[in-house]
Amino acid sequence: MSIRLTILGCHSASPRLNAFPTAQFLEIKERNFLIDCGEGTQVLLRKYKIQFSKIKHIFISHLHGDHFYGLIGLISTFGLNNRENDLHIFGPKGIKDVITLQLKLAKSWTKYKLFFHELENTSSELIFEDKKVKVYTIPLKHRVYTNGFLFQEKLGGRKLNIDAIKANPEIEICDYHNLKKGKDFISKEQNYTIPNSKLTFPPDKPLSYAFCSDTEYHPDMIKDIKNVNLLYHESTFLEDKKELTKRTQHSTAMEAASIARQANVGALILGHFSSRYDDLELFKEEAKTIFKNVSVAQSGKIFEIQN
Amino acid sequence: MSIRLTILGCHSASPRLNAFPTAQFLEIKERNFLIDCGEGTQVLLRKYKIQFSKIKHIFISHLHGDHFYGLIGLISTFGLNNRENDLHIFGPKGIKDVITLQLKLAKSWTKYKLFFHELENTSSELIFEDKKVKVYTIPLKHRVYTNGFLFQEKLGGRKLNIDAIKANPEIEICDYHNLKKGKDFISKEQNYTIPNSKLTFPPDKPLSYAFCSDTEYHPDMIKDIKNVNLLYHESTFLEDKKELTKRTQHSTAMEAASIARQANVGALILGHFSSRYDDLELFKEEAKTIFKNVSVAQSGKIFEIQN
Repeated sequence: MSIRLTILGCHSASPRLNAFPTAQFLEIKERNFLIDCGEGTQVLLRKYKIQFSKIKHIFISHLHGDHFYGLIGLISTFGLNNRENDLHIFGPKGIKDVITLQLKLAKSWTKYKLFFHELENTSSELIFEDKKVKVYTIPLKHRVYTNGFLFQEKLGGRKLNIDAIKANPEIEICDYHNLKKGKDFISKEQNYTIPNSKLTFPPDKPLSYAFCSDTEYHPDMIKDIKNVNLLYHESTFLEDKKELTKRTQHSTAMEAASIARQANVGALILGHFSSRYDDLELFKEEAKTIFKNVSVAQSGKIFEIQN
Repeated sequence: MSIRLTILGCHSASPRLNAFPTAQFLEIKERNFLIDCGEGTQVLLRKYKIQFSKIKHIFISHLHGDHFYGLIGLISTFGLNNRENDLHIFGPKGIKDVITLQLKLAKSWTKYKLFFHELENTSSELIFEDKKVKVYTIPLKHRVYTNGFLFQEKLGGRKLNIDAIKANPEIEICDYHNLKKGKDFISKEQNYTIPNSKLTFPPDKPLSYAFCSDTEYHPDMIKDIKNVNLLYHESTFLEDKKELTKRTQHSTAMEAASIARQANVGALILGHFSSRYDDLELFKEEAKTIFKNVSVAQSGKIFEIQN
């Protein structure tokens, strides 16, 4: 099992020549999710050779431009590409109006089906679930209604101990399904039983990724992201500009690290950097003073975690 | 007198790595106009070092995404940059709703004043005028309500013949204003007169630029662009794909050249190229068969015309 996260854009505010606003592409249990969609996201998807058709679910944290002004263009491009697959968009209430108004003005209704899942709950809620993955909101504290998102693998089946199975020739491939589900093996004549624990290993521990942007320092989120394997937490500023965090409702690298530490996460990625900083390594250095396993986001960088 | 046009984006449909949708920056008589604003325009403005604060008037031809999805981002960036100057936006009815809805959802009203001039007239009309420049709409024929724009210098004052003036020491600098207005010089004692034609040259002939995108072949526009110095006319296709022009309501390079020829323009720029063509020189070759002075648009390319 693995989670693979490609950073598309990771800077705050306006797109610049080599600094694009927030967008991430997440691969988890063969699902592909786009998270936020700042202006230019579709160009970055092309740059990093991510097939548009893979994206069936888009999660938008909030309706500030640097997190969603690329969405209408992407939706339109999907249409120009004769997309047929449904597209599900999760985002704050209002997102449906603004997208549909633009499609209406352009007289360019999509031929594929577009489903909006508008969010307005201020408590964490389950917003997506299928056989293998769950997605929860993580309420954040920002100038407008904002959610982070927690992407969780579901517990899979037990893993076959092939050596042990081969040592019992009566076990056939058609038995594997029951073994994965935890059942003991019972011989055809029902004259003996092998306990499941001798034929399988425990399932992989489900992996999880939490995306938290934008927010001021908000310890309330800790309960929602406890022990996740990977946390992306915004760090618009360093501590030298802490006075700006209250007004703008953003965080410093130190505050992000504090959240990571209190939530006992496996690794921390910092992003949403203010354009006033040239040397992004400073964010890492600041955070490292209280949380060791920290990286800075960068366009095109891939983070992978595996069991 | 001169007109200076910087091509920002000149491709149709979706933004790609090195192919951006329509946007142009026009300098005419110390006025600076942005024409159309596809996604990524603000990044191209930065790339070509065009100061954001220069832009006080934006003209949007129609509400297809490749002509205006960059507008909300640019308006927001102006806000982030603490812009104070008024901004005037000219575009089809509906443009105010879609921009203001996005500002409202983001709770990010601009501190500078934003004026919308919504267009719905299907005949050419004067939409901007100041001391030195006039702008008219050019009704086009496309799948949604679309205007091109005609930018015209106004006739300036007569030009001083400095040699002739210096030969008459009684003429003082304070007389220049009347001379430029075409008045004769009358000596202080009113005992002699010098005709204006001996002290001045005729004014420069006003220059004009017509922007026409997107449209199918539409000879009705010829009356609106007759004898302009410079014409940008879309050429989404070559004649090899002429069968697509009716459904999509776009033009071929040959059709653009035909319009240029019939309107007797000084020079033609082709743009809005479909992504199916790699070799843009083919557009020039096709158009050249019936109109000689033709160029292809290219991001960053500057076209300058002078008297």
